[in-house]
Amino acid sequence: MLLHDISSTIAPDMPVYKNRDEKRPRFTVSRDHISGTIHEGRLDFDLHSGTHIDLPLHVLPQGETSDTWNSKHVLTRCRVLDFSSLGADRIRAGDLQQKEHEGRLPEGKPFFEADSTVLLKTTNSARQHFDFTFVFLEKSGAEFLAQKNIAGVGIDALGIEREQEGHPTHQVLLRKGIWILEGLLLSAVAEGNYILALMPLKIAGVEALPARAFLLEPGSVAWLKS
Amino acid sequence: MLLHDISSTIAPDMPVYKNRDEKRPRFTVSRDHISGTIHEGRLDFDLHSGTHIDLPLHVLPQGETSDTWNSKHVLTRCRVLDFSSLGADRIRAGDLQQKEHEGRLPEGKPFFEADSTVLLKTTNSARQHFDFTFVFLEKSGAEFLAQKNIAGVGIDALGIEREQEGHPTHQVLLRKGIWILEGLLLSAVAEGNYILALMPLKIAGVEALPARAFLLEPGSVAWLKS
Repeated sequence: MLLHDISSTIAPDMPVYKNRDEKRPRFTVSRDHISGTIHEGRLDFDLHSGTHIDLPLHVLPQGETSDTWNSKHVLTRCRVLDFSSLGADRIRAGDLQQKEHEGRLPEGKPFFEADSTVLLKTTNSARQHFDFTFVFLEKSGAEFLAQKNIAGVGIDALGIEREQEGHPTHQVLLRKGIWILEGLLLSAVAEGNYILALMPLKIAGVEALPARAFLLEPGSVAWLKS
Repeated sequence: MLLHDISSTIAPDMPVYKNRDEKRPRFTVSRDHISGTIHEGRLDFDLHSGTHIDLPLHVLPQGETSDTWNSKHVLTRCRVLDFSSLGADRIRAGDLQQKEHEGRLPEGKPFFEADSTVLLKTTNSARQHFDFTFVFLEKSGAEFLAQKNIAGVGIDALGIEREQEGHPTHQVLLRKGIWILEGLLLSAVAEGNYILALMPLKIAGVEALPARAFLLEPGSVAWLKS
């Protein structure tokens, strides 16, 4: 089975949004082998740490929480679009249209079957630390994608947008019920079609879900059929 | 796709081991829509909350940590064994042998292909609160399973054992490199064969990994092949 782990590692020195101290994870050891026969610990972390899903409550007052996350999204068809050669700090509608014209996206709408996912690969994946000028999805790009019949959009940054007043990229996507997947690592993944295996923790009533995500090569899971 | 969510919900009132206060999760809201344009929160939780994987460091000094978790275990063949009618508070080697004789487990060893998983369903799945007399896997049962060629063992209790001096069930399994999956909910799942989709958070250097777990009906994932 060919399987790409596209999740960020949760660790004391992990990159956090804008390098804010209050965003850092805190690990504590409750019991250890010096004082007893067992090792146990706790993790105190921001729900937007590492790889995570944003839900409507994150930017919409009275927006839906994690309780509405649907398990049909655990295994979805997925298209990775490579914008590593973009030469700009934002992905605009025109950049996505260009992919469409090049045949990297089927034209028309919906361009996928229902419940597919688009992941945006950028130069962010090559960076080890938080970059204040990370490449993001501009509002116009979100509007382009929101016209398509997709379940979710992911990106290799801790945010899908920055420096847009009122968080319009989040607003456009989440109002359409399109979930947002942030904190991906896509450096080892080429543009193309995959199966996205995405499993958030089952946390009740929150605005974001820490998650694990893998991309599977489509031909590699034939054994699952038997 | 027929998919059973067998994960416990992480929430303020979730069951915790022996009802200990220090085991409870703590949720905090860092920002909200009253004071700003965004809702963000943190979760401070025991790594053994809800559905989670135990790794060797949990009971073995210098044991391996989460860093050794192998992504080949994300999708594995899985056998659910139903011990709901056991009429005892522990699963012994003889109970597993009985399943073998009934043809519920192929005889011989290995009884599965490599990297398969066994999940133990008991009356625990029917309980909403922590039960101090939960059904567990006795040391002899662990020794029986450790002779088989399996990757992991799961159970529908917050611990795979209790009241055994030195945690021998953990010891026997983890010394053989067999991971332990605790905190499952199996009430809606019948005995039989499934595909286990198991994704722990990617946390570095810890003794336990909070995880999401689903069982897929084998015939329902044919679309993945294309």
